Amino acid sequence: MAKTWKIEPTDSLRVREGFRLADVDTSATPGFNGDKKYGVQALESGAEQLSAMQEKLFASSRGAGGTRSVLLVLQAMDTAGKGGIVRHVVGAVDPQGIRHKAFKAPTEEELAHDFLWRVRREAPTPGMMGVFDRSHYEDVLIGKVRELASLDEIERRYGAIQEFERELVDAGTVIVKVMLHISYDEQKRRLADRLDRPDKFWKFNPGDIDERNLWSDYQNAYEIALQRTSTDDSPWFVVPADRKWYARVAVQRLLVDALSGLDLAWPPADFDVDLQKVRLAAS
Amino acid sequence: MAKTWKIEPTDSLRVREGFRLADVDTSATPGFNGDKKYGVQALESGAEQLSAMQEKLFASSRGAGGTRSVLLVLQAMDTAGKGGIVRHVVGAVDPQGIRHKAFKAPTEEELAHDFLWRVRREAPTPGMMGVFDRSHYEDVLIGKVRELASLDEIERRYGAIQEFERELVDAGTVIVKVMLHISYDEQKRRLADRLDRPDKFWKFNPGDIDERNLWSDYQNAYEIALQRTSTDDSPWFVVPADRKWYARVAVQRLLVDALSGLDLAWPPADFDVDLQKVRLAAS
Repeated sequence: MAKTWKIEPTDSLRVREGFRLADVDTSATPGFNGDKKYGVQALESGAEQLSAMQEKLFASSRGAGGTRSVLLVLQAMDTAGKGGIVRHVVGAVDPQGIRHKAFKAPTEEELAHDFLWRVRREAPTPGMMGVFDRSHYEDVLIGKVRELASLDEIERRYGAIQEFERELVDAGTVIVKVMLHISYDEQKRRLADRLDRPDKFWKFNPGDIDERNLWSDYQNAYEIALQRTSTDDSPWFVVPADRKWYARVAVQRLLVDALSGLDLAWPPADFDVDLQKVRLAAS
Repeated sequence: MAKTWKIEPTDSLRVREGFRLADVDTSATPGFNGDKKYGVQALESGAEQLSAMQEKLFASSRGAGGTRSVLLVLQAMDTAGKGGIVRHVVGAVDPQGIRHKAFKAPTEEELAHDFLWRVRREAPTPGMMGVFDRSHYEDVLIGKVRELASLDEIERRYGAIQEFERELVDAGTVIVKVMLHISYDEQKRRLADRLDRPDKFWKFNPGDIDERNLWSDYQNAYEIALQRTSTDDSPWFVVPADRKWYARVAVQRLLVDALSGLDLAWPPADFDVDLQKVRLAAS
């Protein structure tokens, strides 16, 4: 059987120096060795792999000294498919090991604190796979485009984010930062679909069009944020997302790769197995 | 095709007046119209149904005035299969709509508050499906068996639990309380399996055998707790769990039934659809 990936997404999708968002073809399928049909198959077999690895991650936190965790950060323009990633990629994993957090517009209380305050509290604990549906990056994206903070403050935040993420990494977290990248036209089609289907109305908000009208401002804000915060410890991956099947299989692969890097093993017994067998037999 | 259920679990598994735990056959498959093979099939088709209903529940919370939520409470002796329910039943649902909480031995801070304090904070918000892996019932189970509280206090708690759950129900939550019920012998087999397999060591704790040695005390504590807190608003269901496939398909069915009772519909647009189509077209 041919390899599923000619080039790994960790390599082909990674944001490196000199990155330009406009260079990314949103309808491409970089590195994947097949078409949609094969992509759907790959997603299924990858689901088992991801689920098995996640169980080991979870188990490792039960043994003494397990510190490892994973954090998936999802950022995207509206309709790019964050929800689909959560349902179809993360959904393959035992819910017991998932901590999903959707960040909304900050509350009064949250605004009274530094922008990282609410984020810090949602960082995954050992053994867990955290999912941020939007994140602290909103504070340098909508925060910048809508001028919710001064330019100086935005500037400060890039550094604060780097520092914050380094703390997480030092504490044992692998961070997988994903921007799902769709085209302006594809967004139009998807929004139109939501307006055509009563079972999709709930996903639509008139504000989505306001944001759409600021498309190029957002693209600029993304490009700068990605350039400024894609580090060796915590790189960004820009995933072409016009084809949903590709985005899903690519993000799944990024997660599998992140978990592989942890060299997880079943934790050894921290009790005397034979003694416990004797006790059980006597019960 | 024959009906999957001859008698619905909501009916056959429900704790009613005069309930006695010893009357429940832990290896039976009450109401189910088939064998294991059919049970596994039913679990698969039920998964789609549950997932579709949960999406509507989630959507309903986005519309104005959506107040409904579901709370699955899982209680059981060790190895009875709570984890399997979470993975194989709850796992079928979009992680975005799940709030899973495993209650451990209370912390110092939690002990300084009333026993319901930590539980109240985990009650599901509108649109969500909460899962309690252990719950406030530990405070009348291990709390009673291990004499962690006085008998007067345990007595008070039955009433406090009823009141707390009534509050949740009044606020829009449907509570599905499940005791997974295995036999003493089946537990022995499952614990032995965990001691035989290095990939299961992490699930074993020597304390599990200590608790096992108090089996009949726990059975008594369960029986009383179930009798005292199975109300019309918030009934208990005792699910025979020696056969894992049965327990899973039965709990799935209880959840499907709970969601059916909510008469969920896609929320209507709270915006002018035609106007938004015009705005989108112009963008």
